[in-house]
Amino acid sequence: MSADPFDELLEALRCLPGVGARSAQRMALHLLERDRDGGQRLARALGTGMEAIQRCRQCRNFTADPICRICRNDQRDGSLLCIVESPADVLAIEAATGFAGRYFVLLGRLSPLDGIGPDDLGLDLLDQRMAQEDIEEIIIATNTTVEGEATAFYLQEMAARHQVRVSRLAQGVPLGGELEHTDRSTLAHAFSSRRPLGS
Amino acid sequence: MSADPFDELLEALRCLPGVGARSAQRMALHLLERDRDGGQRLARALGTGMEAIQRCRQCRNFTADPICRICRNDQRDGSLLCIVESPADVLAIEAATGFAGRYFVLLGRLSPLDGIGPDDLGLDLLDQRMAQEDIEEIIIATNTTVEGEATAFYLQEMAARHQVRVSRLAQGVPLGGELEHTDRSTLAHAFSSRRPLGS
Repeated sequence: MSADPFDELLEALRCLPGVGARSAQRMALHLLERDRDGGQRLARALGTGMEAIQRCRQCRNFTADPICRICRNDQRDGSLLCIVESPADVLAIEAATGFAGRYFVLLGRLSPLDGIGPDDLGLDLLDQRMAQEDIEEIIIATNTTVEGEATAFYLQEMAARHQVRVSRLAQGVPLGGELEHTDRSTLAHAFSSRRPLGS
Repeated sequence: MSADPFDELLEALRCLPGVGARSAQRMALHLLERDRDGGQRLARALGTGMEAIQRCRQCRNFTADPICRICRNDQRDGSLLCIVESPADVLAIEAATGFAGRYFVLLGRLSPLDGIGPDDLGLDLLDQRMAQEDIEEIIIATNTTVEGEATAFYLQEMAARHQVRVSRLAQGVPLGGELEHTDRSTLAHAFSSRRPLGS
């Protein structure tokens, strides 16, 4: 007995993160009742995307080309390299800042307990790039978790070997946040790293 | 310049209800990094589903066959017909109850202000079925909204014309709910419809 296309659709939708039985139902019914064209478009985009999207050979971000658009873009400053954990971080930085350099996407962070070492993050490739290219500064934008910090430390040492300047995103109280709702370690860090104001 | 498959995927995912730019990003990255097979399966299920899934000619539920599995199933009691607003309600009733009759899916509710009349809900088809088939009872399971109640009233009159018994899902305090958190109209209804307990 072949499975019912409706049941199959419900089941397939659950591969999306955060989508359980109930949301899958809501999505399937929405598409069937109101947006079959959108559903078809999504089918095509998924089919093409899962085939065509690979890693950029230079920065390891997702792209359908051998080299991604940011790495190909001559207008961008090749001497600045911002190192992030995931493609989502690239999107966030692109959306929020005017950064005009290039990126390097680790796709993870050092985590010896999970068996994730430097090579899994493409750090051999990064090492090569620092040796061969004219990179003046790396901006470390890994997350401020224990593994993110360990990764940042590793990157810092690598940059030192190549005499490349290193910076790290500023850490402190978020803008628009209220002190009383800021978590303790952020507040402690922000307090001890307080900056003098010019008079 | 052709659009980037990654951007197209992000854009296409947003046709799903409740999925904005940020969730689309999370979904795309999840599929690309961890579940390309799932993404391919979803692409196929959507492609097939959007083409093949139509309305059942008897009950108007979604199905890939001319007549859906529930309507085809001889084991189910054709004399009981449960009338619901949406396919999601069929799934909910199937999951929660042991109902062994058949369904009729309105796909909406009477709403003259939105131009939704009896024919849009397939009530002409239902009228025919009540005239021709041996339906003994209709169980009205429309929502307890104003339009749902108006629809229930319309169905009740239709059933009376065909001398078909009518029932409506019981309304009252939800099981496991706390009185103090029950909304006022539910509580008022439950109070005035209180049932005597046998002694």
